[in-house]
Amino acid sequence: MKLLLINPNSSAGMTAGIADAARAVAAAGTEVIATQPGFGPASIEGHYDEVFAAAGVAEQVRQAAPLAPDAVLIACFGDPGLDAAREATDAPVLGTAEAAFHVASMLATGFSVVTTMTRTCVIAEHLVLKYGFERRCRGIHGTDIPVLALEEAGDTLLAQIEASARTALAQDHSGAIVLGCAGMAGLCGTLQQRLGVPVIDGVAAAVKLAEALVGLGLRTSKHGDYATPLPKLYRGWAGPLGW
Amino acid sequence: MKLLLINPNSSAGMTAGIADAARAVAAAGTEVIATQPGFGPASIEGHYDEVFAAAGVAEQVRQAAPLAPDAVLIACFGDPGLDAAREATDAPVLGTAEAAFHVASMLATGFSVVTTMTRTCVIAEHLVLKYGFERRCRGIHGTDIPVLALEEAGDTLLAQIEASARTALAQDHSGAIVLGCAGMAGLCGTLQQRLGVPVIDGVAAAVKLAEALVGLGLRTSKHGDYATPLPKLYRGWAGPLGW
Amino acid sequence: MKLLLINPNSSAGMTAGIADAARAVAAAGTEVIATQPGFGPASIEGHYDEVFAAAGVAEQVRQAAPLAPDAVLIACFGDPGLDAAREATDAPVLGTAEAAFHVASMLATGFSVVTTMTRTCVIAEHLVLKYGFERRCRGIHGTDIPVLALEEAGDTLLAQIEASARTALAQDHSGAIVLGCAGMAGLCGTLQQRLGVPVIDGVAAAVKLAEALVGLGLRTSKHGDYATPLPKLYRGWAGPLGW
Amino acid sequence: MKLLLINPNSSAGMTAGIADAARAVAAAGTEVIATQPGFGPASIEGHYDEVFAAAGVAEQVRQAAPLAPDAVLIACFGDPGLDAAREATDAPVLGTAEAAFHVASMLATGFSVVTTMTRTCVIAEHLVLKYGFERRCRGIHGTDIPVLALEEAGDTLLAQIEASARTALAQDHSGAIVLGCAGMAGLCGTLQQRLGVPVIDGVAAAVKLAEALVGLGLRTSKHGDYATPLPKLYRGWAGPLGW
Amino acid sequence: MKLLLINPNSSAGMTAGIADAARAVAAAGTEVIATQPGFGPASIEGHYDEVFAAAGVAEQVRQAAPLAPDAVLIACFGDPGLDAAREATDAPVLGTAEAAFHVASMLATGFSVVTTMTRTCVIAEHLVLKYGFERRCRGIHGTDIPVLALEEAGDTLLAQIEASARTALAQDHSGAIVLGCAGMAGLCGTLQQRLGVPVIDGVAAAVKLAEALVGLGLRTSKHGDYATPLPKLYRGWAGPLGW
Amino acid sequence: MKLLLINPNSSAGMTAGIADAARAVAAAGTEVIATQPGFGPASIEGHYDEVFAAAGVAEQVRQAAPLAPDAVLIACFGDPGLDAAREATDAPVLGTAEAAFHVASMLATGFSVVTTMTRTCVIAEHLVLKYGFERRCRGIHGTDIPVLALEEAGDTLLAQIEASARTALAQDHSGAIVLGCAGMAGLCGTLQQRLGVPVIDGVAAAVKLAEALVGLGLRTSKHGDYATPLPKLYRGWAGPLGW
Repeated sequence: MKLLLINPNSSAGMTAGIADAARAVAAAGTEVIATQPGFGPASIEGHYDEVFAAAGVAEQVRQAAPLAPDAVLIACFGDPGLDAAREATDAPVLGTAEAAFHVASMLATGFSVVTTMTRTCVIAEHLVLKYGFERRCRGIHGTDIPVLALEEAGDTLLAQIEASARTALAQDHSGAIVLGCAGMAGLCGTLQQRLGVPVIDGVAAAVKLAEALVGLGLRTSKHGDYATPLPKLYRGWAGPLGW
Repeated sequence: MKLLLINPNSSAGMTAGIADAARAVAAAGTEVIATQPGFGPASIEGHYDEVFAAAGVAEQVRQAAPLAPDAVLIACFGDPGLDAAREATDAPVLGTAEAAFHVASMLATGFSVVTTMTRTCVIAEHLVLKYGFERRCRGIHGTDIPVLALEEAGDTLLAQIEASARTALAQDHSGAIVLGCAGMAGLCGTLQQRLGVPVIDGVAAAVKLAEALVGLGLRTSKHGDYATPLPKLYRGWAGPLGW
Repeated sequence: MKLLLINPNSSAGMTAGIADAARAVAAAGTEVIATQPGFGPASIEGHYDEVFAAAGVAEQVRQAAPLAPDAVLIACFGDPGLDAAREATDAPVLGTAEAAFHVASMLATGFSVVTTMTRTCVIAEHLVLKYGFERRCRGIHGTDIPVLALEEAGDTLLAQIEASARTALAQDHSGAIVLGCAGMAGLCGTLQQRLGVPVIDGVAAAVKLAEALVGLGLRTSKHGDYATPLPKLYRGWAGPLGW
Repeated sequence: MKLLLINPNSSAGMTAGIADAARAVAAAGTEVIATQPGFGPASIEGHYDEVFAAAGVAEQVRQAAPLAPDAVLIACFGDPGLDAAREATDAPVLGTAEAAFHVASMLATGFSVVTTMTRTCVIAEHLVLKYGFERRCRGIHGTDIPVLALEEAGDTLLAQIEASARTALAQDHSGAIVLGCAGMAGLCGTLQQRLGVPVIDGVAAAVKLAEALVGLGLRTSKHGDYATPLPKLYRGWAGPLGW
Repeated sequence: MKLLLINPNSSAGMTAGIADAARAVAAAGTEVIATQPGFGPASIEGHYDEVFAAAGVAEQVRQAAPLAPDAVLIACFGDPGLDAAREATDAPVLGTAEAAFHVASMLATGFSVVTTMTRTCVIAEHLVLKYGFERRCRGIHGTDIPVLALEEAGDTLLAQIEASARTALAQDHSGAIVLGCAGMAGLCGTLQQRLGVPVIDGVAAAVKLAEALVGLGLRTSKHGDYATPLPKLYRGWAGPLGW
Repeated sequence: MKLLLINPNSSAGMTAGIADAARAVAAAGTEVIATQPGFGPASIEGHYDEVFAAAGVAEQVRQAAPLAPDAVLIACFGDPGLDAAREATDAPVLGTAEAAFHVASMLATGFSVVTTMTRTCVIAEHLVLKYGFERRCRGIHGTDIPVLALEEAGDTLLAQIEASARTALAQDHSGAIVLGCAGMAGLCGTLQQRLGVPVIDGVAAAVKLAEALVGLGLRTSKHGDYATPLPKLYRGWAGPLGW
């Protein structure tokens, strides 16, 4: 199967790193095709960054139609453009936060999220509510590590994230940790070993859930809310993206 | 005061119509400056359309900084880019659906929404939940009238919307009607007269709420979730929009 | 427009103070007519006090019919008699807590309430739930300052309220402060300056929202739940108040 | 034990009828002392009526202190003044709707309410939410029978209520019926026989729950929210009712 | 009336102790018939223990049919088998947690639970949600006292539970304490005296609520969800338990 | 990987059918080991049946320890014994309803459940709430087809289920159908073809989700709520099942 992995920010370097993490868990028959928008922010750390990223995700899904991907993965914890992407294709589309929340709730009665900037916690809160995990998610903890600092994560950052995770487990009475940034994928194994609880990287989770959906022969519903966009005029740089 | 009214779709004609409706209720001292993005869909009828519109709203708020608007109004019932706009300015920012919901809940114990395409009802549902009106909003009713058809709304359309509103009042035990599209503003007075209940046009509501907030000397909070975007690289056509 | 401001407690001195605060934000064309019930508690610090105040509000609205007010404002943070008043008039009626919650939620993703007696926090909690702000209101903090002590508020009281607000902002991850007592109006400006976040006085908020509703030509819905009271016998001192 | 039954409306005739219904289920050792306020509406059919009734309940509880009742029952389905009464005494206080909801939820997974005026349904809805029965209560159905018409309820009224109850059971998938007016007590037995499901009269339910609480030696908590009212000046006719 | 008290664990000694506590509050005419399953765990401290206990409760209700009990009490705070028991009899069935939650919410605006093992708190949380007390129950506190240690509870255990209750009252702003284990019944009186707030033992609460329901002539609804089990083959040791 | 599939009812024939359906979607390397309890009901159509089934699931998981399964699947739509099984093993455990709900919510904004006996709908409702899908699940529809009748499902049954699904899609504005009984697996493909929307069989969904979790190297959390059962005496037939 062809899995289209879209990194919603415009950093090709981060795309490569995330794609490596995805390929590390992908099944033998899964081809990961990684891409990112040609425009927009180098990292996503707030609502303003996010709207450009969401438009970028929509653009990438639209342009990838000739590839006929079997599934699509939005590799950012804010799941920008998820609903738009589900309109734009009938392949299953998975978000990173969405996938992580689903997986965590199958392994523990409650989980905590450890993320980057505190100012982005509210984005995770909105997703928790939208997806229905408000009783399963017992806490969202910002570490105030900038997203791009994760690319060269060393021992200090790891120790900081580990400490935040330990606090979360104790305070929230949680049984699992969700990593709240696609850029944290590389730390997942080490953290799980140190903490002794399930630690979930949403990108890896989304890869395996995408394979599961494809294996079930299921497609995004085109009946109702995710029906194909209506044909209409698109103006400016978005001109070619209308239906 | 200067009120920046952003029509999130790219139709200048619709901008003009909405601006007229806004000016009709604006106070003497309120100058309505109307604009729309230079790119994106001619109307917003789904999640795919909406992500481009949200990016357009962010762009317009960013570019309007030299104007120093006293308040910002996002003139589309899906409130695209609302949180992004609140990061990008410290002026108060009002969404159309948001304003309509707030106003309706001050006038009746429950209200119903009458909107355009049934496929967009889920967008309104998400806003209802996000804003906390899930017990006040007792029903969302699609009429399957295309947004652009509203520009030349005649008696047939009006009758169709009136019928849908009557059904909503009876089925939902509601006391007020919220019009679920910025393009319905022109029908508001007639509908209110015919139905005998408050009929709320979100654009007008947002104009008056914006004036109220400015009158109170209140600004969007820059403490926490709506802090100014972090400085970072923006690529491509969005290059000039980064902080 | 004529704005009927009802102070639900029986202290004429407090009425005068609140009316001054209301007039300070009212538009040029807004006439504030302030009154209070002739019976009941000198301040409202619990459910027992509140039921007498609610009856007093209903009495005042009923008796003010000849004045034909354009809007009514219930100037106490518990919003006593709000639904009753909405039955008794078709003018828009605003509660103090209600107005403050609506305004705060347009300026920040979350707000905290700082109020007087801890024992009244549960009243605010019930209002938060009734109005649908349970996810926006992140904390309600009692200072255990008696309501009447606010009339002669000096630097010590101000410092105490400021400290409570700072704690609230930090603990609750809030972006705005709502003052939980009509008697705190005078402190609003100073607190906002010191705290650097929006500080909302509900009475001022209600004045401007009332002006907004009147400006929109909207009235309380008489269809359904807020229909005019049914005609019936009223006994005792309430005899003249029946319909 | 002495059970103070307060009929919150001012109709002594209705008090007598409700007291009879209460005595019919009371234990041998339970003395029912029935009373009603000397002021206010002859029946309660809306929020306006209700605020006077709530003040009347508070007055009656306050004046009954010398009687030292072991428990208090507020015999109206809107539970007016319940929280105020709990401040004013440390005897257990039961509301009619409250008692009915608790009892119904021990007998069926879901129940429906059949009440009088449709315009009062919203009052029951607010109580359902306040008490936490929003998932147990599957429907609230108005019959538009005036409260005072119940005093001389004949076969036609009974048939109307029975029909409404049958509709409720079928539409709501409910297993029990709650009668939404203290004046319906006399119909409870007949309805239960005809419908073949539990039919709950809230006054009877409150009598037995009051006996249960007294039997457990439990009193209303004076720690926190229901602490005795603070001493303060009460003005006008309410002068003697202050603490 | 005959009250069938089922201790869901298999410890006859604990049955005797709970039966004594039940008889201490039972009315003169109430005969308490106490029993426990012949199989399963000696105490219930987790979901695994609980499923065996639930099957044991179902077995005991089924086998007790010839006794024709007037009411059934499940004497364990997790209420194992409550819905099953309600299908298996038309007598009212009360759970221990259920009864305690109902009673506590009639005495205070909020309550806290003090229980045994922290790992069982999640069971109480699920019940709180199932019954609709998620806003009334303000905290669930584990003491990590093993259930069987309660049988010989001395001063140290009492002090530990008292300390936990004091912390709960302060942290949770609660007005009442619910004891989260049927084995804590003996401590109820002493704790109430020391804490000065209502302390609720669920077994005693369930006895009095069962008497109340029987006094009202109400039975478990057989319409819908609690209809008698359908006849079918049961295999193995459960063979005689099928319908 | 070894996947332990437990059919919670005692019908070996149904086990074989479900195992076939599971094997049809399992990956090449997945060995499905199917079993059922030696005791309890031949089908599960209510809470009474369910408690025996839950004990049977716990027994089977306990006895399967020597097999060291990599994952466990509880093949009944009520997910009996799910939490107990998660205590009894550190392999991932999936329930049928749980898996179906998770998968459906990745494909549509809302789904409807079509199940067997109407009396079991309340069990599905409780699961929907427990798992957090109360906003995604828009309706649960009983067909009143007995579970065992599904074993020989012919065209009439299929037509009945199809009709119920069409009604559900229209009434509930849903985009996907969840089959509410493990015995409906064989109809899934045909229904999906006829309805043109995703139709989800929970057993198949659980197989693929189990493979996904195993592929991620994740295990059930043993920190907190799902910790291994505490060692204690088990009596009677359950004697060997204690820890």
